[in-house]
Amino acid sequence: MKKLLNDPYKYVDEMLVGMCAAHPEIYRQAGEGGRVITRAGSQRQGKVGIVSGGGSGHLPVFTGYVGPGLLDACAIGDVFASPSVEQMSEAMKVAHAGAGVLRLYGNYGGDVMNFDMAGEQLEMEDDIQSTTVLLADDVSSAPPEEAEKRRGVAGMVYAFKIAGAAAEQMLSLGEVTRIAQETADSCRSVGAALTPCTIPQAGKATFEIAEDEMEMGMGIHGEPGVWRDKLKPADDIAHEMVDRLIADRAIGSVDRLSVMVNSLGATPPEELYILYRIVKKRIEDLGATIVMPLVGRYATSMEMSGVSMTFCSLNPEREALLQAPARCAFWQVG
Amino acid sequence: MKKLLNDPYKYVDEMLVGMCAAHPEIYRQAGEGGRVITRAGSQRQGKVGIVSGGGSGHLPVFTGYVGPGLLDACAIGDVFASPSVEQMSEAMKVAHAGAGVLRLYGNYGGDVMNFDMAGEQLEMEDDIQSTTVLLADDVSSAPPEEAEKRRGVAGMVYAFKIAGAAAEQMLSLGEVTRIAQETADSCRSVGAALTPCTIPQAGKATFEIAEDEMEMGMGIHGEPGVWRDKLKPADDIAHEMVDRLIADRAIGSVDRLSVMVNSLGATPPEELYILYRIVKKRIEDLGATIVMPLVGRYATSMEMSGVSMTFCSLNPEREALLQAPARCAFWQVG
Repeated sequence: MKKLLNDPYKYVDEMLVGMCAAHPEIYRQAGEGGRVITRAGSQRQGKVGIVSGGGSGHLPVFTGYVGPGLLDACAIGDVFASPSVEQMSEAMKVAHAGAGVLRLYGNYGGDVMNFDMAGEQLEMEDDIQSTTVLLADDVSSAPPEEAEKRRGVAGMVYAFKIAGAAAEQMLSLGEVTRIAQETADSCRSVGAALTPCTIPQAGKATFEIAEDEMEMGMGIHGEPGVWRDKLKPADDIAHEMVDRLIADRAIGSVDRLSVMVNSLGATPPEELYILYRIVKKRIEDLGATIVMPLVGRYATSMEMSGVSMTFCSLNPEREALLQAPARCAFWQVG
Repeated sequence: MKKLLNDPYKYVDEMLVGMCAAHPEIYRQAGEGGRVITRAGSQRQGKVGIVSGGGSGHLPVFTGYVGPGLLDACAIGDVFASPSVEQMSEAMKVAHAGAGVLRLYGNYGGDVMNFDMAGEQLEMEDDIQSTTVLLADDVSSAPPEEAEKRRGVAGMVYAFKIAGAAAEQMLSLGEVTRIAQETADSCRSVGAALTPCTIPQAGKATFEIAEDEMEMGMGIHGEPGVWRDKLKPADDIAHEMVDRLIADRAIGSVDRLSVMVNSLGATPPEELYILYRIVKKRIEDLGATIVMPLVGRYATSMEMSGVSMTFCSLNPEREALLQAPARCAFWQVG
């Protein structure tokens, strides 16, 4: 795996400097070491702040989604590593504009521990009220009866978008939290990996896989999936992913949903579109309607090859918020 | 190289079906075999039509850039293969709305031959006036004194955007053609490849390169570059690319330019931002200003790993047109 980098220990810092230099109208570095990314403009007083955070190496997740109608700030760790309590605390302080802060991020042990500590600290020291909503949408990472153990993956993007729009409408922290939680509960994802990626500081692939193999259900950091076998035809993979999501009650009685067909990095949009044909047919065969399909690179693992599929079931409230205007360097709605 | 596909001979057709299914508000298939992509809405009468075309495997180039403020139609061949004369002719017919058609595409032999024949045919049989502007922005593909032999690469994106905006302003075919030609003349690009990609129908990599090597100046189809050596640090690569563009008079006396740092596919945005730091510093050290930097995947070769850099020098006319509204599935301005 070849990477364009200098000192691997500066990968994240150089990346953040470049990102803010390329999009100064959207992103600004804050906090010690610049490991907090916040919106370029000032916070709107009285708006609920939404903060996310996690390891680097997943652009546009997490920092990329800072922007109007999306996140207010983000704490960013090294590649695939949690940010510190201090960085998370700084992100929350930056995002706070008098109406409290929602912490909205993926269900990973290190992130949860640090974000909880940061939240407690801020409540005690600065009297900033905050809430937490965790994304745990990866159906392959634990069975339904242990859904609280599941990892958060691309469903996060729907939660950022829908909760972000709710906050722009000046809803209360309670309301924004409710909507974010309902969105998290409405998302199911499944991934399939074809190749690993390389963590710069480790300098070697995150896992090994044969040149003719794939792994269904693998996590975005290379966490073990549900099976490994010969690479299958695209349509078979798409059908199995849809089957797995439906089996996990990803649709239920809902008749409107958004669908994301997401590249883990190297897989080109050409191939995502080949998969999308099948997803669309399957959903339509169920009598449901796809709203605002997202086909592209929304949550990646650098140069990893593979794909994930997310269903986000909608009610009228979530559908309107999903389609509300939003803007970051990687995605623009409306 | 692992690819998500079914029958390799259906790669392009399935991709186009999926792309139009995912974005029916933007794209529509037309022509025999659906190998012409046109805007979903009807053509505005009296607007100059802009048509491009070329081989598949470069999304968003070419078909991805069909949309308001960009292209009107596109003829699309198999992966890395020219569309037929008939497909090009169909694209031009679809794009014609009474004011003639500009053919705007990259300087590759097969494309030029077929597009010229299609143009002559349409002028004789249908009395449709048309012009040609070729992109030939790859400085590594021929020396300055043979600039007409150079290949067209990511500079195309600037030409689509700027000429597309000119056409939306209802300028004449002569004016749109002048602006497109001036944009083509204002673009210089250089690429560096780290890995090949796989053409589905061939089933093997387009070229071989060692696990620790890169090739400076390589073309987007694997055409030979100017040197092959050990992979260098990101900053060294960025400096050399800037040097090569400046040596080719990419800036000259201009004080405002746009810069594109483009992934050839697998290279993640994290690494593009690392490169962008250097580009920005170099341009600013020259006393020039970067307008609307484009850092991302604008012209790719599927899962190829590598990067290209394009400078587009601006005058007030081009700058205003570059920033005018435009929308396709891969890019939104304004």
